[in-house]
Amino acid sequence: MGQAIYMLACRLFPICRSITGKGVRDTIRIMRDYIDVECREVPSGIRVFDWTIPDEWTVRDAYVKDSSGRKVIDFSASNLHLMSYSIPVRRVMPLAELKTHIYTLPAQPDLIPYKTAYYTDAWGFCMAHREFLKLRDDVYDVVIDTEKRPGHLVYGEYLHAGASKKEVLLYAHICHPSLANDNCSGLALLTCLAAYMKAASTHYSYRFIFAPGTIGSLAWLANNEHRLSDIAHGLVLSCIGDGAVPNYKRSRRGNTMIDRIAACTRCGDESIPLTIKDFSPYGYDERQFCSPGFDLPVGLLQRSAFGTFPEYHTSADNLDFIRPEHLGTSFRMVKDMIDALEGNWTPLNLSPKGEPQLSKYGLFSVIGGHKTNSDRTLAYLWVLNLSDGHNSLLDISERSKMPFSEIAAAAAALLEVGLIANLGFTEQ
Amino acid sequence: MGQAIYMLACRLFPICRSITGKGVRDTIRIMRDYIDVECREVPSGIRVFDWTIPDEWTVRDAYVKDSSGRKVIDFSASNLHLMSYSIPVRRVMPLAELKTHIYTLPAQPDLIPYKTAYYTDAWGFCMAHREFLKLRDDVYDVVIDTEKRPGHLVYGEYLHAGASKKEVLLYAHICHPSLANDNCSGLALLTCLAAYMKAASTHYSYRFIFAPGTIGSLAWLANNEHRLSDIAHGLVLSCIGDGAVPNYKRSRRGNTMIDRIAACTRCGDESIPLTIKDFSPYGYDERQFCSPGFDLPVGLLQRSAFGTFPEYHTSADNLDFIRPEHLGTSFRMVKDMIDALEGNWTPLNLSPKGEPQLSKYGLFSVIGGHKTNSDRTLAYLWVLNLSDGHNSLLDISERSKMPFSEIAAAAAALLEVGLIANLGFTEQ
Amino acid sequence: MGQAIYMLACRLFPICRSITGKGVRDTIRIMRDYIDVECREVPSGIRVFDWTIPDEWTVRDAYVKDSSGRKVIDFSASNLHLMSYSIPVRRVMPLAELKTHIYTLPAQPDLIPYKTAYYTDAWGFCMAHREFLKLRDDVYDVVIDTEKRPGHLVYGEYLHAGASKKEVLLYAHICHPSLANDNCSGLALLTCLAAYMKAASTHYSYRFIFAPGTIGSLAWLANNEHRLSDIAHGLVLSCIGDGAVPNYKRSRRGNTMIDRIAACTRCGDESIPLTIKDFSPYGYDERQFCSPGFDLPVGLLQRSAFGTFPEYHTSADNLDFIRPEHLGTSFRMVKDMIDALEGNWTPLNLSPKGEPQLSKYGLFSVIGGHKTNSDRTLAYLWVLNLSDGHNSLLDISERSKMPFSEIAAAAAALLEVGLIANLGFTEQ
Repeated sequence: MGQAIYMLACRLFPICRSITGKGVRDTIRIMRDYIDVECREVPSGIRVFDWTIPDEWTVRDAYVKDSSGRKVIDFSASNLHLMSYSIPVRRVMPLAELKTHIYTLPAQPDLIPYKTAYYTDAWGFCMAHREFLKLRDDVYDVVIDTEKRPGHLVYGEYLHAGASKKEVLLYAHICHPSLANDNCSGLALLTCLAAYMKAASTHYSYRFIFAPGTIGSLAWLANNEHRLSDIAHGLVLSCIGDGAVPNYKRSRRGNTMIDRIAACTRCGDESIPLTIKDFSPYGYDERQFCSPGFDLPVGLLQRSAFGTFPEYHTSADNLDFIRPEHLGTSFRMVKDMIDALEGNWTPLNLSPKGEPQLSKYGLFSVIGGHKTNSDRTLAYLWVLNLSDGHNSLLDISERSKMPFSEIAAAAAALLEVGLIANLGFTEQ
Repeated sequence: MGQAIYMLACRLFPICRSITGKGVRDTIRIMRDYIDVECREVPSGIRVFDWTIPDEWTVRDAYVKDSSGRKVIDFSASNLHLMSYSIPVRRVMPLAELKTHIYTLPAQPDLIPYKTAYYTDAWGFCMAHREFLKLRDDVYDVVIDTEKRPGHLVYGEYLHAGASKKEVLLYAHICHPSLANDNCSGLALLTCLAAYMKAASTHYSYRFIFAPGTIGSLAWLANNEHRLSDIAHGLVLSCIGDGAVPNYKRSRRGNTMIDRIAACTRCGDESIPLTIKDFSPYGYDERQFCSPGFDLPVGLLQRSAFGTFPEYHTSADNLDFIRPEHLGTSFRMVKDMIDALEGNWTPLNLSPKGEPQLSKYGLFSVIGGHKTNSDRTLAYLWVLNLSDGHNSLLDISERSKMPFSEIAAAAAALLEVGLIANLGFTEQ
Repeated sequence: MGQAIYMLACRLFPICRSITGKGVRDTIRIMRDYIDVECREVPSGIRVFDWTIPDEWTVRDAYVKDSSGRKVIDFSASNLHLMSYSIPVRRVMPLAELKTHIYTLPAQPDLIPYKTAYYTDAWGFCMAHREFLKLRDDVYDVVIDTEKRPGHLVYGEYLHAGASKKEVLLYAHICHPSLANDNCSGLALLTCLAAYMKAASTHYSYRFIFAPGTIGSLAWLANNEHRLSDIAHGLVLSCIGDGAVPNYKRSRRGNTMIDRIAACTRCGDESIPLTIKDFSPYGYDERQFCSPGFDLPVGLLQRSAFGTFPEYHTSADNLDFIRPEHLGTSFRMVKDMIDALEGNWTPLNLSPKGEPQLSKYGLFSVIGGHKTNSDRTLAYLWVLNLSDGHNSLLDISERSKMPFSEIAAAAAALLEVGLIANLGFTEQ
């Protein structure tokens, strides 16, 4: 599965996305090879809360030529070279003027930074600082062949229908150009997850949204305000393809079921706990879902946290930075979280006075004494001990500090042999 | 006192105990030199909750001889050599077959492990891995002269009657053979404590139980189910004779008075705080007392925690591993906990506006300025400050983070000089 | 301001203060150059709660001469040489007898300790241990020209009247002789603060009290018992002029507004958080304010905590130990705490659905992408996110872990542009 996600990410990587324009449409078109994602359009000029849908931005070409005619900056080499939403320019100018429009990273001199200017009229180029230092005192031909004109903001939406109309929101931002972890990784993982889930019958309905950062989630919220009460749980995914210990940021409410499940989830074969961080209003689109007027139970899941890794928003966030194996462990982690949402029932111990004799049921070794107890045995004991009718499997996972998946497997085995009963599913 | 406990442990050590049989009876007989412990019998075949009392096991001899007639394993050298509850065997067999019944510890090659097979029909020998490697390819004469037949499970019970019918349960498991810390230490300490308390008038009644692990505590629970509501507090003791920082594991409820007292208790002359651990359903007989159908306020007190020390369940858990001085500090620690149960009253400051002038009462040095305040003075200040009628001595010990014994001594002195009044005793 | 506070501390330093007598009167007289502090008198012999106002102590001279007529100890060289409240002595005595009245610090052999004997009849000298060792076996002429006779205990009181009759208590003890940090620093800082506040209109009234330790605060409490319910917040200041990370000790209640504000305050240009300590009944006059009969919301603010620094209560606590720059940062810290008391209002987000487009209001950079977010931007986001009508600025500061001053500045800017409304001031 990690390999499949990686291959999709590779297909999405070269596209020059922005918050509007052809890039987003091309990205959704590729996703449609996997799932029937709907393409929603919102016209430029429409108000969404405190914002206005901007004009649609089209980029055809952009470069800077020196007086010898050599292209010293060329959009076709990397779409990061052009600041996103740059206005058209076609002028000759001296180096001194050009320099006021060039962004570099002196501390990371080989990397091209990623810059945007969505809600203003500006233009700029981004380049490696080492290349920047080589620019001679010359007269440069600056060409930015772009266009901003009324059109549409576009986002993708896909619904996996479950038994309940209560929904789980799964969101990835679609507005970044050739940046692999941020967020080809999230787009590819959610697309493959949606495809994988086609075969599954679920309790919840799962709503996958692929929308431009901020303005896209706001547009979705504005279009769906009447039924936000159906959102039972949600997760924003980004930067999910590198090898760091996963980071989960709690929802604004701080103790919703998805927050609690994240703390009971483990990652990879080494079963590493996620680093759990309190909510803060800075980040990705969970900012909008968790604004005080909505306050939805939506968390943010990442491997490396945005803004903290050196590759962040630079040309080093490329296809070498994300790995199939990490995408695979991230996928399993998200799937485990969904399994926990789907499988949080409340057990009742039918033999609550003392421990039952587990060896009678084939659940305990008949030879005792000098040995370490297995995790599975410990999970049996925890489930039995806490199955007083007041604790769901999630409660038991929290108190035992054991992974939800381990507790759920133990509970299934105890249910099978008749030692516990199922008092029912907990939706929230 | 440490010396007396150690001497009793030395008497108990050689006996080959198991969950039934002569070893338990012999152990109780020795205890009767100290206290009038009653010997309770429960017939084989009786159901106790999900379990059945097993047949009584008798061991007369067990050995393995090589073809030259030399005993290469001999039960009479160490009762750990025979896996507990081994069925009778009297056969000649090649090394290859014998090996499938031998348990060793390759990582601790000089130690004999302790193994059991209570609830199945199996047999086995335990030996040092270094000796195991010396076994030649030979034909061996295997003799296990044991017997399992209907009889009784036996446990000891002793009541120290106090003014109240509310009881404090003190429990040590009696089923381990020649293992000194686990649990000759607990048996000897509780026996000596019961003898020591004969002279004392107490509020609570104290019920001492010496029973085989799991099946013994279950049998006691089954016999006493009608009056479990009288158990106000309880403590399981094991591995209480080594020199480690004591470990206390909270009861299932997690914040009962005995749990709170453990956190306010100190050990030894260095006044070391106990390491307090949250409840977990793995351990000794507190598992049964804390099962969801009973949920009694019973904690586990140990020095080294079971399973964590290299000597655990091996021949290295011998009389050199436990020390009179450690048994002495453990005794004082348990006695301090009992003193706290017996002495948790609520003080009322009779001079609550400002501090009283302690030097008037001889409770404060008249020379001030450059000096460290003594712990006793600090204890006076804490008791006075928190004696608003809402805090018991235990509450004060918790908030001040001072040992209960220190707070209780300060409160006694303040009561004596009339600065506080006693609003009464808190039973729970 | 640090310089001004330091200069006042320098004027107060040489005076020989004690809990009664000329030193306190002289100190208040100097303060009157800054503010109209009232001098309150309480006659000797009056009961205050469990205490009695002692006789007034006057010291004229004190020395020890050796047989050659040389003064080996001389009060006029340092007022620390004489134990405070020493009774008159005029006797010749051998070294052996003299030694029983001499206090030294063997571990700090160059420093003179500070000792007191307020509520007894005793006498003593304090000296450097190195000088003590030089005393020859001689006959010494011991002269202590002091007097204890009925008079008055004196304390200073100054009220800055605000709009409300609810008061903020600001307290510094006035009874220590030539010790700079403990507490010329506190006396000088509060005096300069009171002078500085003359120009300010405040909501609260601010009551400044300069009184002798323990007996002085008790006397004030006894005189004002009928209106203690007006004390809304309070702070005891001492040891406030050295360079340590500030220490704040919570009030007895533990979560009053002043306690919460202390945790949201920062010190100095490096914005260092205060070390917050739980209440304990040992310390300065907060002991009396926080006794169970009053239980006022009063905390203790210090730089180095009393008793923990080597200069404490020795001659090394001199004018070199306190520094103008530290007094300046301490002043700003106290002022920030007062600003928080005065400025804790509750904002309401008028654009609560999603984030408002901050760049429209000039509150966010129009160029995005690779950059660290500024603290101010983060403060905008926190205020907007938590302005649901249920959170005051102090609540927001606590949850965001950002300094109150930063949150307050952000809220002021958001209010200015109309993104939030002010739902009103929180008094407690």
